[in-house]
Amino acid sequence: MPKAKAQKSAEHFAGISKIAYEGPQSTNPLAFKHYNADEKVGGKTMAEHLRFSIAYWHAFRGAGSDPFGPGTIVRKWESSSKDPVSVAKVRMDAAFEFYQKIGAPFWCFHDRDIAPEGATLAQSNKNLDAIVAHAKQLQKATGVKLLWGTANLFSNPRYMCGASTNPDAHVFAYAAAQVKKALEVTQELGGENYVFWGGREGYETLLNTDLKREQDHLAAFLGMAVDYAKKIGFKGQFLIEPKPKEPTKHQYDFDCATCIGFLRSYGLHKHFKFNIETNHATLAGHTFQHEIEVAGSAGMLGSIDANTGDLLLGWDTDQFNTDVKELTLAMMSILKFGGLGSGGFNFDAKLRRPSIDLADLFHAHIGGMDAYAHALKLAHRINSEGVFSKKVAARYASYDSGYGRDIEKGKASFESLEKLVLGQLGEPTPVSGKQEYLENLLNTELFR
Amino acid sequence: MPKAKAQKSAEHFAGISKIAYEGPQSTNPLAFKHYNADEKVGGKTMAEHLRFSIAYWHAFRGAGSDPFGPGTIVRKWESSSKDPVSVAKVRMDAAFEFYQKIGAPFWCFHDRDIAPEGATLAQSNKNLDAIVAHAKQLQKATGVKLLWGTANLFSNPRYMCGASTNPDAHVFAYAAAQVKKALEVTQELGGENYVFWGGREGYETLLNTDLKREQDHLAAFLGMAVDYAKKIGFKGQFLIEPKPKEPTKHQYDFDCATCIGFLRSYGLHKHFKFNIETNHATLAGHTFQHEIEVAGSAGMLGSIDANTGDLLLGWDTDQFNTDVKELTLAMMSILKFGGLGSGGFNFDAKLRRPSIDLADLFHAHIGGMDAYAHALKLAHRINSEGVFSKKVAARYASYDSGYGRDIEKGKASFESLEKLVLGQLGEPTPVSGKQEYLENLLNTELFR
Amino acid sequence: MPKAKAQKSAEHFAGISKIAYEGPQSTNPLAFKHYNADEKVGGKTMAEHLRFSIAYWHAFRGAGSDPFGPGTIVRKWESSSKDPVSVAKVRMDAAFEFYQKIGAPFWCFHDRDIAPEGATLAQSNKNLDAIVAHAKQLQKATGVKLLWGTANLFSNPRYMCGASTNPDAHVFAYAAAQVKKALEVTQELGGENYVFWGGREGYETLLNTDLKREQDHLAAFLGMAVDYAKKIGFKGQFLIEPKPKEPTKHQYDFDCATCIGFLRSYGLHKHFKFNIETNHATLAGHTFQHEIEVAGSAGMLGSIDANTGDLLLGWDTDQFNTDVKELTLAMMSILKFGGLGSGGFNFDAKLRRPSIDLADLFHAHIGGMDAYAHALKLAHRINSEGVFSKKVAARYASYDSGYGRDIEKGKASFESLEKLVLGQLGEPTPVSGKQEYLENLLNTELFR
Amino acid sequence: MPKAKAQKSAEHFAGISKIAYEGPQSTNPLAFKHYNADEKVGGKTMAEHLRFSIAYWHAFRGAGSDPFGPGTIVRKWESSSKDPVSVAKVRMDAAFEFYQKIGAPFWCFHDRDIAPEGATLAQSNKNLDAIVAHAKQLQKATGVKLLWGTANLFSNPRYMCGASTNPDAHVFAYAAAQVKKALEVTQELGGENYVFWGGREGYETLLNTDLKREQDHLAAFLGMAVDYAKKIGFKGQFLIEPKPKEPTKHQYDFDCATCIGFLRSYGLHKHFKFNIETNHATLAGHTFQHEIEVAGSAGMLGSIDANTGDLLLGWDTDQFNTDVKELTLAMMSILKFGGLGSGGFNFDAKLRRPSIDLADLFHAHIGGMDAYAHALKLAHRINSEGVFSKKVAARYASYDSGYGRDIEKGKASFESLEKLVLGQLGEPTPVSGKQEYLENLLNTELFR
Repeated sequence: MPKAKAQKSAEHFAGISKIAYEGPQSTNPLAFKHYNADEKVGGKTMAEHLRFSIAYWHAFRGAGSDPFGPGTIVRKWESSSKDPVSVAKVRMDAAFEFYQKIGAPFWCFHDRDIAPEGATLAQSNKNLDAIVAHAKQLQKATGVKLLWGTANLFSNPRYMCGASTNPDAHVFAYAAAQVKKALEVTQELGGENYVFWGGREGYETLLNTDLKREQDHLAAFLGMAVDYAKKIGFKGQFLIEPKPKEPTKHQYDFDCATCIGFLRSYGLHKHFKFNIETNHATLAGHTFQHEIEVAGSAGMLGSIDANTGDLLLGWDTDQFNTDVKELTLAMMSILKFGGLGSGGFNFDAKLRRPSIDLADLFHAHIGGMDAYAHALKLAHRINSEGVFSKKVAARYASYDSGYGRDIEKGKASFESLEKLVLGQLGEPTPVSGKQEYLENLLNTELFR
Repeated sequence: MPKAKAQKSAEHFAGISKIAYEGPQSTNPLAFKHYNADEKVGGKTMAEHLRFSIAYWHAFRGAGSDPFGPGTIVRKWESSSKDPVSVAKVRMDAAFEFYQKIGAPFWCFHDRDIAPEGATLAQSNKNLDAIVAHAKQLQKATGVKLLWGTANLFSNPRYMCGASTNPDAHVFAYAAAQVKKALEVTQELGGENYVFWGGREGYETLLNTDLKREQDHLAAFLGMAVDYAKKIGFKGQFLIEPKPKEPTKHQYDFDCATCIGFLRSYGLHKHFKFNIETNHATLAGHTFQHEIEVAGSAGMLGSIDANTGDLLLGWDTDQFNTDVKELTLAMMSILKFGGLGSGGFNFDAKLRRPSIDLADLFHAHIGGMDAYAHALKLAHRINSEGVFSKKVAARYASYDSGYGRDIEKGKASFESLEKLVLGQLGEPTPVSGKQEYLENLLNTELFR
Repeated sequence: MPKAKAQKSAEHFAGISKIAYEGPQSTNPLAFKHYNADEKVGGKTMAEHLRFSIAYWHAFRGAGSDPFGPGTIVRKWESSSKDPVSVAKVRMDAAFEFYQKIGAPFWCFHDRDIAPEGATLAQSNKNLDAIVAHAKQLQKATGVKLLWGTANLFSNPRYMCGASTNPDAHVFAYAAAQVKKALEVTQELGGENYVFWGGREGYETLLNTDLKREQDHLAAFLGMAVDYAKKIGFKGQFLIEPKPKEPTKHQYDFDCATCIGFLRSYGLHKHFKFNIETNHATLAGHTFQHEIEVAGSAGMLGSIDANTGDLLLGWDTDQFNTDVKELTLAMMSILKFGGLGSGGFNFDAKLRRPSIDLADLFHAHIGGMDAYAHALKLAHRINSEGVFSKKVAARYASYDSGYGRDIEKGKASFESLEKLVLGQLGEPTPVSGKQEYLENLLNTELFR
Repeated sequence: MPKAKAQKSAEHFAGISKIAYEGPQSTNPLAFKHYNADEKVGGKTMAEHLRFSIAYWHAFRGAGSDPFGPGTIVRKWESSSKDPVSVAKVRMDAAFEFYQKIGAPFWCFHDRDIAPEGATLAQSNKNLDAIVAHAKQLQKATGVKLLWGTANLFSNPRYMCGASTNPDAHVFAYAAAQVKKALEVTQELGGENYVFWGGREGYETLLNTDLKREQDHLAAFLGMAVDYAKKIGFKGQFLIEPKPKEPTKHQYDFDCATCIGFLRSYGLHKHFKFNIETNHATLAGHTFQHEIEVAGSAGMLGSIDANTGDLLLGWDTDQFNTDVKELTLAMMSILKFGGLGSGGFNFDAKLRRPSIDLADLFHAHIGGMDAYAHALKLAHRINSEGVFSKKVAARYASYDSGYGRDIEKGKASFESLEKLVLGQLGEPTPVSGKQEYLENLLNTELFR
């Protein structure tokens, strides 16, 4: 087809070839040092473990703007004077070229990232259909798959006071119609998950807010999504992405623990897992690993939005994460819970405002992919050898038999335990937690 | 009785009489400007609304120590060279003198605050029994009642790695025996609630922690408490006091929303309400009012630990709260949810380290009681006049009829709503949230 | 002149008259309850004390955008299809109508707020000249004066790595040329101060930064400004506005104390005072009053950017400040240091994103002005009566005579003091800091 | 002497031999993997570079207490029923045994750490003299030297409102006498530095504080120290240890930049350098490397208090630092500024409360020493190869010639630069900051 040919000829990242694995000793900045897609780590390839995904919004709609200035990043494909839908197609061509060159098997999007919003919902849907058809073609041509889709329910001014938690039922209805369509196109593109990030589902001030009623509405909305997915046969996993604040003062999906309470209160917990973002975890006062442990312990570990924040800054900096130590701890927990299933590691991370070169987009993703791959290898070895897990198991051994086992089995009571303590047991002997020793061990493992 | 007489003669706060209400124009620092116990506010007296309580640990065991130095506050009743149980009795005499002079109808304690810990649990229980008998006498003599009791499961080195979440089942058993006794003495003293604050129920490092197993143990422990209370006929309300961190890095009872999730996951939510502390709320990243709204919306608003932190400091400063604006917002929500029931406002607040005068203990509590009383009056008037509530109700009116009502009643779906939006509804019109207007209105109400 | 007539006929805030003072009992949301311009407070009118100023950027260039969505606020005067300079004139007409109706005697601007940036510096300067001529006419017609001017050295992509601290000397030169022009137009409009806010004068990562060299360049830049002001006879006060972070990770003008060190290190301290912003103070970990005390103690208290942040959020929320308690403390310190001189209270505060009504702009400024005016009255009374100042003076009285006075006069030494301590003085007796008492007193003063 | 013999026979850390270097592959937890004292790194041995020091207070006076419970750590040498001075001597014997076994060439102390405070200053001084004599003997016998001494001016209740900033001149005098003695004993023991940490030199509330007067007093105090050191011929370096808060709400020595301003304002800056503590840096909102850069750029980099905090916690956790990445960045800056001179790396870090084993004290210090040694090797290689420094130099090259050089030489002006920009220069071209590329490069360097 002439069109496809035209696309081929228009190379957007000219001068940058597919990124190859060259190993830890490589000094080539445009090569992987650790991510080797087909390398086996414990029975699965790295590609199968990590299921890397590129976030369309940051990689192809972000231009470096911040509250103090407009974008700094100029891409050739944006300079066209063509109509917005045509520009959207060329932009998507560039995106799929990038996915292939960086070697990411998945991508993710919000509806409004990929297609321009129209004057009416009908027009927006039409624009979306046109781009989805284009995306389907590109997915087929490249083999790149959709990790998850979602709807942007936070940018348009209509959502300024929330979407499903908006005080105006009209906005709730609009959001419902938008998510309905987003679910349909996610299904159309074979999306393996669907994400809810409640960007403005929260409040700015309690002076004008009925918190209870807003939470009821949010639950009603999620319930409708569950019903509609069932109706259309969408089998993807629903994911909630917690975030404590920003843009609003308080967001209802504060962190995993909060969402567990919310979902259980409304009987929705069987239908959702979590899409955990590192920077959201730390904004909520938690480590990344903590959120993984909370989700995993509840059987609700779904997917990862792979980025990092700056703990000395109080906003969502969405940086690429190259902290191998932090990621090794995260990977140890993820592997312990059996991995991410239909989820993956989606780079919800943006270039720094001054990182304006085309090559910077590659450096950023190479750094992130390498750090996760490096961490995967380390975590697998650590877990396989039981470096920490054996010690942890031993630490709780008193619950494996005797009255400890009775406690776990529900066979003990205050009275039975008091009897033991006043009798044979007496005063317990404190046991060192060995934290410094374990921290040293972690360093040994990281660098050995 | 000669004993009672002896007590009378030993006045510990000599020179300070019972604090009287003198009204807002009073310049007497040892008088109430707003707290007027018998004054009616909307059908109940201030005393009935506020149910003030003195925290034994801060008021009578705190001496101003901090991590950088020992206590600075010297009390005469501590200087005795008598045996610890005798000192404990005199200290308690001083406490009840203070309760009466400050006009607090309630007090609260941890087991180890009131009676010295012995070499064995049996000895500790014996000491506790002796002091509880003394307290019962004092309660009877003064009319002061017990708002709640609790067990200190965090100070003794045996609990350094947690009590019910300790890796050693022996410690779990010990804690069970200790709480059994604490429940019994709380019942003996007519306590209207029993509080669980999980001081070290959390972790220092995930490297040595089995988070899931620890949470299972915590749930088992709470379940045993529920069972034992039932068995002994204890009718008081169980309360959980959330705190996100400090002393440990992460505590399982992070905030109200987290605890709702935890309790529901283990089927325990019907047996617990919350004891909300202001400083714990802010350490978790929330306003005080937010935590009240979360608890109240879940029907789990139990009691208040009345204090404040310093938002520019990252630890639990436990200061007396004199911020009438913050407290008015809190009271507006508390009154909306129908008040605290069997709970009350317990001054879990400590004197600043340099506040070493006996009178400072009065100044501190007078300031706190006045601020809450002032806030109560303001909040009652604001709520009665519907200053904010009418505006909030109007803001959500679209859910009171038509498709908005259908959404709330579970009769709407993504399809029905999409049909409306693509049809008659079209694009919603944004409506101002009026935040600045409402903030001005609050100021008008505070100072009118 | 027909032009002026045309302007008159185009009322931009139709339906809103000049805001009048109606007193604390007024229920009119569009009236002042405390700000009464001509009312005397201790020998000066409120207008003379407060010198309120409207920030052009927030009030007339802000539209409610945030990192998660574009603006929500639509103003009629922006909808024109005219050329940018014409639109800028109409916008400025609206601004001066607002200044008059709200009763603000001053305004403030960045060069790029008021006039569109052109393709070249020469074109930008030409645009600026056209608008400055218009502003001069409006100032004359209305009597509104310029509190301060400044240059926007942070929005344009050329400044993405700083202006005077940019690694590229070309950008330094460009910034120099821009500030030269901004100084000239500030002088042309009779500006009483000129502000430096180093929006991106800092770093994102130390990996690519020569901190020492950047600080040298910043000092060189400020030195050139001092020289040029002298040359053109600009008599306005130079002000530095500290901010610790945001947009960059670290900004060199972290807080007042940091700037004092910087200015003294380069011998520039005699030429600068501070423009203190409340939200910047708290982002740096300080209270507003603290920054005032630091600046005032150094004789460098210049002006105030009047706003507030949310201490539970980690970014610059720039809200209107209605906290009378916080502002009373600030005013107590400001009055103690003799007021702001050529400075004023400039509302560097923005409407919340959902505050989209024209009236909201009035509510916001009325609330802010009333809160400062209320605080001024309270602080004046408190200071006049010496409520706190007498107690503070008494607390340090031991330095007013004897060896205390010798310490202050430089006549004491370690040896002379040791001799005293080993001899007559012995051990000091701790004295209560009376913090709770003083906090109660503050509440009494606020509400009496 | 029989006494010395007796000491020798009393091995306090029985079963633990001198810690040996075994290399990165060692699995022996009681061996160094990286710290190899005599290994040369760029012309100096590791021992010469790092000058490790043990903090007497944490290692030998800390017992794991926190605000919620007393100490957990029991040491045999504390259990004696002997008089306090005798116990202090045995404790010091244990300390020097530890210094030798861990291989630390230096130690540090506060006066009150090593010798018990007496009923009078004279008695305290006498106790101190006895212990200093013992320490001198032990230093001679072991070759361990004193890195720095200091006085504890924050624990005793007399200092509850500050030492030199106390409102009571009597306390100032007492502090002066105490520091006089501490300087003398530091000199007696050959201390290479003397540290001022202003533990309570700050305020709790501005309501009772005269900030200006307190800062004047602090400056007077430091001036007296300078004078007295000169008088007695003490040649050690004076160091100020900045900390922003805790125990007080605000401390005058907030961070290095604040102290530079303070010292310059009082003309004291030539007499002081900084003792930078990692955890204090982060409490002030800075990275460790940032504080090193600020101090080094001012020529005031003195010594390091080697520890780390937890960025998700808001208090001084004083943990052992094992983050090789953070330490490599720190070491890169330290080496760039020529090292620490008479300073060293002092482990101002404490065992976690549950780390109660004797061996834990070794694990903790081994981990810290290894992490710094590892970082030293990496940083030396990175700096030697110019991995980052060459790129940084190139980034600022425009200031090395032409008008850039003129700017640095003070030969440019706003006018000369405007002329260039309006003429030949025109609009600058933005250049990428390459942050992601540099972050990847750092990871490559850490793990290659």
